[in-house]
Amino acid sequence: MQIFMETGPLQAYLGQQKKKQSSVGLVPTMGALHEGHISLINASRKANAVTVCSIFVNPTQFNNPSDLEKYPRTPERDFELLREAGCDAVFCPEVQTMYPHPSQLSIAFGQLDKILEGEFRPGHFSGVGLVVSKLFNIVQPDNAYFGQKDFQQAAVIQRMVADLNFPVKIIVAPTLRERDGLAMSSRNKFLDAEQRAQAVILFHALQAAAAAVKKKSISTGQLKADLKKFITAAPLARLDYVEFFDPETLEPVAHVKPGAQMALAVFFGKTRLIDNAQL
Amino acid sequence: MQIFMETGPLQAYLGQQKKKQSSVGLVPTMGALHEGHISLINASRKANAVTVCSIFVNPTQFNNPSDLEKYPRTPERDFELLREAGCDAVFCPEVQTMYPHPSQLSIAFGQLDKILEGEFRPGHFSGVGLVVSKLFNIVQPDNAYFGQKDFQQAAVIQRMVADLNFPVKIIVAPTLRERDGLAMSSRNKFLDAEQRAQAVILFHALQAAAAAVKKKSISTGQLKADLKKFITAAPLARLDYVEFFDPETLEPVAHVKPGAQMALAVFFGKTRLIDNAQL
Repeated sequence: MQIFMETGPLQAYLGQQKKKQSSVGLVPTMGALHEGHISLINASRKANAVTVCSIFVNPTQFNNPSDLEKYPRTPERDFELLREAGCDAVFCPEVQTMYPHPSQLSIAFGQLDKILEGEFRPGHFSGVGLVVSKLFNIVQPDNAYFGQKDFQQAAVIQRMVADLNFPVKIIVAPTLRERDGLAMSSRNKFLDAEQRAQAVILFHALQAAAAAVKKKSISTGQLKADLKKFITAAPLARLDYVEFFDPETLEPVAHVKPGAQMALAVFFGKTRLIDNAQL
Repeated sequence: MQIFMETGPLQAYLGQQKKKQSSVGLVPTMGALHEGHISLINASRKANAVTVCSIFVNPTQFNNPSDLEKYPRTPERDFELLREAGCDAVFCPEVQTMYPHPSQLSIAFGQLDKILEGEFRPGHFSGVGLVVSKLFNIVQPDNAYFGQKDFQQAAVIQRMVADLNFPVKIIVAPTLRERDGLAMSSRNKFLDAEQRAQAVILFHALQAAAAAVKKKSISTGQLKADLKKFITAAPLARLDYVEFFDPETLEPVAHVKPGAQMALAVFFGKTRLIDNAQL
């Protein structure tokens, strides 16, 4: 496995691969890898001759400096996992390499970046769009892989690829879960034992909502109220939001039926977890 | 010369060229071609195996619908000029091809798009950034050619290429001028005989400013006042702005010295002309 910190050597390597008409898959990550990321590497390896994983904790997508600072960084362990998974190349640039000067450019996504995570994290999706554009232009992959857990991020990137005609196919892979149903996340490391035990409430809330709407369509207001109450079963949980919307347009729905998308964010102490599912 | 209206056949053609390791030059235009555009085609032909000219009157960069509607469109004459110049391929998409749905994405350029043309034409540079990104991603050129006459556009695009790591080199070619010094522009067609005769005042103002600062550094306020008066020599001219700034950062300067960049915009009736030069 080749490890690159600079764009020049990475592009020289990829240029050699592309001469052989090899297809390139890109898995953009912020490191602190878990099985969810590795499932993206596996998906890329199945479809591409060359798989590149980028590891970069992107400062422009953090609106909270302390969140950026404490974001977990485990490069040695990441390299080991990627090597085991058969990843061909890792791109792990320094901040100075990706942002040699502060970016004057910003990307906005209309309504898409004002709702859900965009409302809670102003500027977050602009930063995501910026770094993903940079990675697409540096690596020029044929395919790029994202996790369904960050479904709004995937929607924003699909919008960006369509609106800017990026010559890359976006593949969104299913969320991997721990045995009890908790969605895998680099942030799960921050949970203490008691919080970890209660964190499964996000998954249970998704299941409860799916079961409820299977019987009959429910008004969004009613279902939100029911779920707020449901989540109090985990005394350490503090609900940030629970929302229901059309999975294509991300438009909020007034009544929740099977097929609607549900997303929620819940704090445990200072750790904020998100999850989502199509009901 | 091949003419393409759709992205698929253009990309198939370019794919064949790229297999042969041929370098590709792109000259993005809005049509109504004049010698200035043709000088960009010539520059591209010298440096690239394949030259693509795009002709697209981009609606997202017009803030004024009547300006968009009356923008000159002369496709047959354009094709003739391009054929004579030895251009290899023309990409002239319909609006529906470039924007199959309204773009939800917008690009902002910080201070760069708030000054000069950006102040007068809100949203203009966002539209330019959008369409140039699309063209870069569709054509994937090695080199792209822009005219110095739209120096702020060139600055915005160079910023975008740097900030988003587009794998393309930007070449900015000198402004071509009519015999009397008027900068060539598709909008010159709108001038009646009397306006046309007076339109050379933009060039004369650039020359006057250059001559003035050659002797001594002048305060920007003073020089602006002098030039306002100077321009009244053309009774049909209505000055929109005249500005002085650093040619690299586009930061306004308080004192104008040789090396400073000057830009001005002048109305003749409803026709707005721009020009600029490094003094």
